[in-house]
Amino acid sequence: MSRLQQALAEAAAAVTEEMERLLPKGDGLEGRVFEGMHYAIMAGGKRLRPFLVMTSAQLFNVSKKSALRAAAAVEMVHTYSLVHDDLPAMDDDDLRRGKPTCHVKFGEATAILVGDALLTLAFGILADPATHSDPEVRSGLVTALAAAAGAKGMVGGQMMDLEAENQMLDIGAVTRLQRLKTGELIAFSCEAGAILGKAGEPARHALRAFAHDLGLAFQITDDLLDTVGSESDLGKKVGKDADAGKATFVSILGVERARAQALMLAEQAVAHLDMFEEKADLLRDVARFVVERRK
Amino acid sequence: MSRLQQALAEAAAAVTEEMERLLPKGDGLEGRVFEGMHYAIMAGGKRLRPFLVMTSAQLFNVSKKSALRAAAAVEMVHTYSLVHDDLPAMDDDDLRRGKPTCHVKFGEATAILVGDALLTLAFGILADPATHSDPEVRSGLVTALAAAAGAKGMVGGQMMDLEAENQMLDIGAVTRLQRLKTGELIAFSCEAGAILGKAGEPARHALRAFAHDLGLAFQITDDLLDTVGSESDLGKKVGKDADAGKATFVSILGVERARAQALMLAEQAVAHLDMFEEKADLLRDVARFVVERRK
Repeated sequence: MSRLQQALAEAAAAVTEEMERLLPKGDGLEGRVFEGMHYAIMAGGKRLRPFLVMTSAQLFNVSKKSALRAAAAVEMVHTYSLVHDDLPAMDDDDLRRGKPTCHVKFGEATAILVGDALLTLAFGILADPATHSDPEVRSGLVTALAAAAGAKGMVGGQMMDLEAENQMLDIGAVTRLQRLKTGELIAFSCEAGAILGKAGEPARHALRAFAHDLGLAFQITDDLLDTVGSESDLGKKVGKDADAGKATFVSILGVERARAQALMLAEQAVAHLDMFEEKADLLRDVARFVVERRK
Repeated sequence: MSRLQQALAEAAAAVTEEMERLLPKGDGLEGRVFEGMHYAIMAGGKRLRPFLVMTSAQLFNVSKKSALRAAAAVEMVHTYSLVHDDLPAMDDDDLRRGKPTCHVKFGEATAILVGDALLTLAFGILADPATHSDPEVRSGLVTALAAAAGAKGMVGGQMMDLEAENQMLDIGAVTRLQRLKTGELIAFSCEAGAILGKAGEPARHALRAFAHDLGLAFQITDDLLDTVGSESDLGKKVGKDADAGKATFVSILGVERARAQALMLAEQAVAHLDMFEEKADLLRDVARFVVERRK
């Protein structure tokens, strides 16, 4: 197992445990929404965003507890977005990470509420004094996450994606769509470490620049896997975007140029980390992993 | 026009203007979600929650700007909950305040995103330095709103409500359901003024107690109006809960006892305000208005 694989596995285990601790528990008629939240969170996934939070937090000697809580909040926002995106009115996916999606398992109404509750919980976690002793840091995390996840960030990207089904996008529009839909939350994940560590503007800027290139490289690789990957490797349907007639990086650039573009972006991402010297080696590994992964 | 009616109208106009300022604008493919947010917010309503924020903030000499921003955030959360509750998978309502609901006008997918974006924006507004100079206040608002609106608050209440369709609730269960579904956000609206004004625990406690009684009186009156009101007065369907076989205060207590209970709760709410003397007169008026309203 490589250094990165080991670090990823450790971070995934730690953040999953932390999320389990933070999720609501109890009986009563509302217990169904707690169950749904638990199901959606425990369905797994790479936990890439939490890893980015924790790894960038390490650059600034942030306490493990602070980093874990912020990492849990980010993963909850990511999970809420998947639960809502999978709904019949949205992408209509029955399968996610090889398991029935939340609405297939719990019904649409519960899945809507599960997403709402995860999003709400994430903000509550970030603002809680347990996350950081400095309230300026806590409210800074909330404003940055709200910007990344809202109508001018992730939700706006999802809206663009739905609208894109009716028209042919050019490479500029696809890039902007993906920056909003997945890039902003990845950028927040990296920036969260800097906010927690009260890092200066140059460090925050470097991490955002790293994350933007990383996010785009990640998405292009997703498109490549959707075109050439196999369903059993991915645990979800492949060829779905092409079937829907959606413009993707691959449909616009072709497989070879898209692959070259992803590799170039990964190298560019790494270049942004120079100021952190060898302390950022794990982040450098991530950039390479993101474009080399098979699922 | 009574003192209260005038104050309600002024607060409604001010918060509507503030929300218009805070809502995202712009073209691009994601513009549809901006339009949907605007439509849902501008559909109107009594703006009762913003009024409660602003009126309790006045008890502590909070600046108008701070109060307006917190009021706008609360109304956005309330509006998101209506947009999601109206969805076909939830209560399936076509009409809200006499107008087509968000999903009827914009489609289900956009309505889901509109709700998500309004909720996210609300947290972003509260945590923004423009809301209050003290970051402790800002993160205090976020944690309190997250608790009121999440799985152990409003979302939990909506989950209970959906589950209640399959079983007969007793008066204790209906009371708890309504406390979560509508009471917690009303309680936050009143407590927000105290948080903004850095009020002591006795004042916070008094306002929460006031709000809990008020919220219950409000809900019982809603049930009464649903039973005996007319569709044209309300701008929405009546008799819907009874048709769905749901237990309500009225179905359990009967019209007369429910009315008496609402009046008693309104008086009890007023009694919690003694410590504020005549400064709380507008809040006293609200308690009476809530049980006397015709729609």
